[in-house]
Amino acid sequence: MTHPPLTTLNESLPSTVPFVGPETQERQLEREFLARIGANESVFGPSPLVCEAIKQEAGAIWQYGDPENFDLKVALAQKHKVDFSNIVIGEGIDGLLGYLVRLFVTKDVSVVTTDGAYPTFNYHVIGFGGTLIKVPFLHDHEDPSAIIKMAHDTQARLVYVSNPNNPMGTFHGPEIIHKMLQDLPKECLLCLDEAYADFVEESALPVFDANHPQLIRFRTFSKAYGLAGVRVGYAITNASLSTAFNKVRNHFGVNRLAQVAVLAALSDTAHLEAVKAQVKHSLARIADIAAANHCKAIASRTNFIAIDCMKDGAFAQRVLAVLISKGMFVRMPAVAPQNRCIRISAGTEQHLDLFEKIFPEALKIAEQ
Amino acid sequence: MTHPPLTTLNESLPSTVPFVGPETQERQLEREFLARIGANESVFGPSPLVCEAIKQEAGAIWQYGDPENFDLKVALAQKHKVDFSNIVIGEGIDGLLGYLVRLFVTKDVSVVTTDGAYPTFNYHVIGFGGTLIKVPFLHDHEDPSAIIKMAHDTQARLVYVSNPNNPMGTFHGPEIIHKMLQDLPKECLLCLDEAYADFVEESALPVFDANHPQLIRFRTFSKAYGLAGVRVGYAITNASLSTAFNKVRNHFGVNRLAQVAVLAALSDTAHLEAVKAQVKHSLARIADIAAANHCKAIASRTNFIAIDCMKDGAFAQRVLAVLISKGMFVRMPAVAPQNRCIRISAGTEQHLDLFEKIFPEALKIAEQ
Repeated sequence: MTHPPLTTLNESLPSTVPFVGPETQERQLEREFLARIGANESVFGPSPLVCEAIKQEAGAIWQYGDPENFDLKVALAQKHKVDFSNIVIGEGIDGLLGYLVRLFVTKDVSVVTTDGAYPTFNYHVIGFGGTLIKVPFLHDHEDPSAIIKMAHDTQARLVYVSNPNNPMGTFHGPEIIHKMLQDLPKECLLCLDEAYADFVEESALPVFDANHPQLIRFRTFSKAYGLAGVRVGYAITNASLSTAFNKVRNHFGVNRLAQVAVLAALSDTAHLEAVKAQVKHSLARIADIAAANHCKAIASRTNFIAIDCMKDGAFAQRVLAVLISKGMFVRMPAVAPQNRCIRISAGTEQHLDLFEKIFPEALKIAEQ
Repeated sequence: MTHPPLTTLNESLPSTVPFVGPETQERQLEREFLARIGANESVFGPSPLVCEAIKQEAGAIWQYGDPENFDLKVALAQKHKVDFSNIVIGEGIDGLLGYLVRLFVTKDVSVVTTDGAYPTFNYHVIGFGGTLIKVPFLHDHEDPSAIIKMAHDTQARLVYVSNPNNPMGTFHGPEIIHKMLQDLPKECLLCLDEAYADFVEESALPVFDANHPQLIRFRTFSKAYGLAGVRVGYAITNASLSTAFNKVRNHFGVNRLAQVAVLAALSDTAHLEAVKAQVKHSLARIADIAAANHCKAIASRTNFIAIDCMKDGAFAQRVLAVLISKGMFVRMPAVAPQNRCIRISAGTEQHLDLFEKIFPEALKIAEQ
């Protein structure tokens, strides 16, 4: 006898995981990875101020965190020059995307995304019974015209765009994004995932009216700030939608140590700049290694880089398998033709020494 | 112009907060509380091993936590003598209750709870469109017979029982809970919130078959373990339902520092026992203070105690307001006749000195 039946929707869903974690792979391989550069975490670590803040707060962990995330919202409003009411804090962008989808999506609601873009967003759309429509990449970029056309054709309620894009690292400038927003169907919301925007120079990023009714942008502390483990992301959106998150969010969901950690991280702009310089240097070296092996790195505006292995998905999959077997945690795009690539996050010199050594071997083995 | 319309259900929901946090009250009062003993946090703090583990892990926070929570599940399975497959980890019981309700509740599904019991559970049921049916307390205890009868009458899919109960601190022994489980309608799940079970001696707690198809139990690190700020709760249930959480959960939702913190907490049973002794001592003193003021403490099996102020809800509300204005963060039950009480969490001697001083004043002012 099993448990009482779930809702019809939930009975139909798979028990799944959008990403297999590196720890799971380590348990399967019965060894630890030598280079953890597969999830676009920042191997350059958090600011020392973050570590200090966490240590200072450890003894206070018997207290729930502030469910309003007040201090953090004040700091983020200041950083982005928006009002306090424009900020929503949540358990990573993953958590916030879940709330967003829940607010807008139910059975028969259409949602447009790019085929091969963020699986966790798709997980939420399917999880709330929505109809997910995937538009192919165009020349390894998200395809704004096709996305907007599809949004009109399907009367989509949500459109998901990541800019810079994951997993390809490509980027669209302000004009293109502004045009998307302008051409969006009137009852559709643009969900703009800017998880990697911290790696783009400020002047190249689109500037928006925070109260635009059809826009919600997502940012995270998991990438440039080196705080993937704290689980804090945030959204910038109009005050009305921001308030609506209070209908569905886990009000006490943010860890108290996370709250002090991200405040400390925001205060250390020097660390952020240093990380960005290290990332730039690291990606350049990865591109050099790719070129030396007759492969091609796709120009990236993020902290990772897709390497075109110059053959098909099956070949890239074999390359990836060898890298993993030799102690490198790396990933690859899921759909063709982007799955001709493998995706490497910025690593330390030591990580890249390893990559330089085993990448030629992996290519050779994959040839066989 | 506002944002695109939400789903019909979400348009109908209020933007709310199940609990106003003490930080919000402090901002309103423009002063800090002298005694934070209103949310049943453990003022006795976490184990020193927890603080040490957090400090050790701070620098590793650039990595996502293990989405499987593998080590923690192993430790909890061992602690509860159940299988790894019987454990679900989540962002506090609050987060897990949200997932549970989502799995089982949709429009027109009935859910039975006790009137005045946990508001966050109700928030989730309403949030997923369920019909919430509230059974009154009986002599300040949850009323098993009435709950079960109501579950049959309404063809409820879920029944929520907290044992020991919050906000009254009362408890039902194994026989009563086992009879509830036995008498439950066959398509109904018993959601047994055991957040305060750590304060009950092991021998007095009901023992269950972890694979019982109609039972899910919830535990937390927020109370006896002094880790409210980490946001980790867990459920023990049959392997089939446990797996179903993977349909809807935020896989990367648990903070990495939280993962090491709760492992350390589990290893320090001496600290847990010391906290339980301190709680017992503290509650006895609160009961003495109540008696000295011609009020009556309700016998509690938790880390808080309800004090019957011997008049009506309006009177208790006035008592509470005075305590808050004088720097004590305390709360009270929300519905009659339990709202004749105020609810005080176990505090330090210093907290209780303050309470001893201002409680008579509060009663006197409330009389006027």
